[in-house]
Amino acid sequence: MTAPFANDSVGLVQPRTTHFDEALLLRSGETLASYDIVYETYGQLNASRSNAVLICHALSGNHHAAGYHRPTDKKPGWWDNLIGPGKVIDSERFYIVSCNNLGGCHGSTGPATVDARTGRPYGPQFPIVTVADWVQSQARLADVLGIDQWAAVIGGSLGGMQAMQWAIDFPARIRNAILIAAAPKLTAQNIAFNEVARQAIRSDPDFHEGRYYEAQTEPWRGLRLARMLGHITYLSDDLMSEKFGRDLREGRINFDYGVEFQVESYLRYQADSFAGSFDANTYLLMTKALDYFDPAADAGGDLSAALRDVSAEFLVISFTSDWRFAPYRSREIVRALHDNDLNVSYAEVESHQGHDAFLLKIPQYLDVFQAYMGRIASRL
Amino acid sequence: MTAPFANDSVGLVQPRTTHFDEALLLRSGETLASYDIVYETYGQLNASRSNAVLICHALSGNHHAAGYHRPTDKKPGWWDNLIGPGKVIDSERFYIVSCNNLGGCHGSTGPATVDARTGRPYGPQFPIVTVADWVQSQARLADVLGIDQWAAVIGGSLGGMQAMQWAIDFPARIRNAILIAAAPKLTAQNIAFNEVARQAIRSDPDFHEGRYYEAQTEPWRGLRLARMLGHITYLSDDLMSEKFGRDLREGRINFDYGVEFQVESYLRYQADSFAGSFDANTYLLMTKALDYFDPAADAGGDLSAALRDVSAEFLVISFTSDWRFAPYRSREIVRALHDNDLNVSYAEVESHQGHDAFLLKIPQYLDVFQAYMGRIASRL
Repeated sequence: MTAPFANDSVGLVQPRTTHFDEALLLRSGETLASYDIVYETYGQLNASRSNAVLICHALSGNHHAAGYHRPTDKKPGWWDNLIGPGKVIDSERFYIVSCNNLGGCHGSTGPATVDARTGRPYGPQFPIVTVADWVQSQARLADVLGIDQWAAVIGGSLGGMQAMQWAIDFPARIRNAILIAAAPKLTAQNIAFNEVARQAIRSDPDFHEGRYYEAQTEPWRGLRLARMLGHITYLSDDLMSEKFGRDLREGRINFDYGVEFQVESYLRYQADSFAGSFDANTYLLMTKALDYFDPAADAGGDLSAALRDVSAEFLVISFTSDWRFAPYRSREIVRALHDNDLNVSYAEVESHQGHDAFLLKIPQYLDVFQAYMGRIASRL
Repeated sequence: MTAPFANDSVGLVQPRTTHFDEALLLRSGETLASYDIVYETYGQLNASRSNAVLICHALSGNHHAAGYHRPTDKKPGWWDNLIGPGKVIDSERFYIVSCNNLGGCHGSTGPATVDARTGRPYGPQFPIVTVADWVQSQARLADVLGIDQWAAVIGGSLGGMQAMQWAIDFPARIRNAILIAAAPKLTAQNIAFNEVARQAIRSDPDFHEGRYYEAQTEPWRGLRLARMLGHITYLSDDLMSEKFGRDLREGRINFDYGVEFQVESYLRYQADSFAGSFDANTYLLMTKALDYFDPAADAGGDLSAALRDVSAEFLVISFTSDWRFAPYRSREIVRALHDNDLNVSYAEVESHQGHDAFLLKIPQYLDVFQAYMGRIASRL
């Protein structure tokens, strides 16, 4: 009998849910009276509780970062390329924790959750959450798991922003922050793309002001558009040209509005599969958390000042073809860290895969990342 | 009494419409039995009929390129920065013709026009037109105006593609082709953005399969989204940062989905004003004409071969911050022209305004363009 999974897979995993009854005060001033956080763990916490790492997910991610929920699953968790026995984030050396963020739609309390106070789904009543709010809720999860200090907090894109916020908000609870394909704040263009996505969802007649659950419908059209648009910004122009070029699906132009170019087919497929598995209200919340993230703002726009109390060591990685959060955005972070005499490793990885490169097995990326994780492991 | 317009304005202009009864066979194989073309002219045709230049418009443009329709108009035509007495395209030296393309929504026959055969607006029955079809129809307009040969055919973006097609299809009828911020074909990313715009319009419940005129409605939501998205691609990341940065409209974050960042306000304003004056079916047609443009395709993908019979001289201009049609796209054209030993001037203009730079008064741009037009004028 052969093993159902590869040797470097964490194999079957079981999500767990923790309920929190202590109210969480949010940056908006609103309060979540109680909430659930769903999470997965891979590997074992060591006796000194020093080997825990937290994985933070990006806009459309969730707690299922590695392994399989069922033997029949076609795809593993979203970062299975990097997490597993002997992999970059080695489950034989680290105790890896990955949770679904508040406001999410994969098990943690979010807009689709029934609000116990009203007996109806929160919908638009779910408060807008920020990166700092997520970090607070993750700290409480760490308390429950008996983790005083993370060996590392790790994330790509919006996940990297959480790692940065951890280093600012809980300097004593994080030894390393690993920020991949991140930015210290969004540009006007980044915000503009998010705004178009939000308008697509909110102008969909099936949005019903966010109360679509009760209308037994969903703003599919808007969510599809938001995802198509997002997808364009995750890939580089080069990669799209390489993958699709101007290839025609039927080898000829049909002079109609059906699918003609392969890239159109790809976008529609991505949109359909996403819209079937993601909640529109969560998408709105996630884009707002991105727009609002700006740790420098609290320090008068001075990022170096915002990082003054940070003590973690950093690994920062960017990708040359990432035009969503281009390398110069990572360099802004690195400069501000250097201003504070922090220990920073930085790698600008040559790649043509755009923003999504952080999910992929790119040798230079894996090598740099693995070396850094090895150094952390050697100090456990 | 002061003059109502500046000395370098063409002043009040009056559009004219010409009806064509000879059927136009389109690239799609369909036929337009008869059609109207609306156009404006500025300046006077000289005795030798050698000073005519044709202005070709881009996706959202029209025939009104310069001057004013009414003394009370707040804005002049879309290229008034460049067209007028003593300006780059000098109406004292040239006879300037600017028409609305077939399929448009500003007077030339298009989807909103009533089809004489059915008594109903064409709507989705209006055939998909290509850049080559436009050039054919413009050639017929030239016949009507008694213009055997254009001194120059000039256009930015999709307009530049028409100028290029003119040089290919009517080598004997064009002495100069001026291509600004253009490309020899769209990339997969360009097509992807167009596809999202089309999906936004076509998935709007008010689209009614393109028969919205009869439903007394319009797919405003979709057209707004298409325009917002387009607008992001017309501006550079730098220009958006400079214009809006992360400025907040009310100076603070409100934690809601109203307008918070200035860039959101700008996008919504642009979208509203566009959706009130443009036809959604025309937007669809224009994006298809862009997607299909690929003169090299008829020559086995070899652009140099496609340009073999061209005899015009060329001015090609690109802008450093244009990421919709970046300078390397213009250089592809220049290389293929050089392969054919054609006389080509090329300028890569330093600018931070993105694709829309071709509409603006950028000194280096105007200087290069003016010098080239001066050379044409000196040979009339």
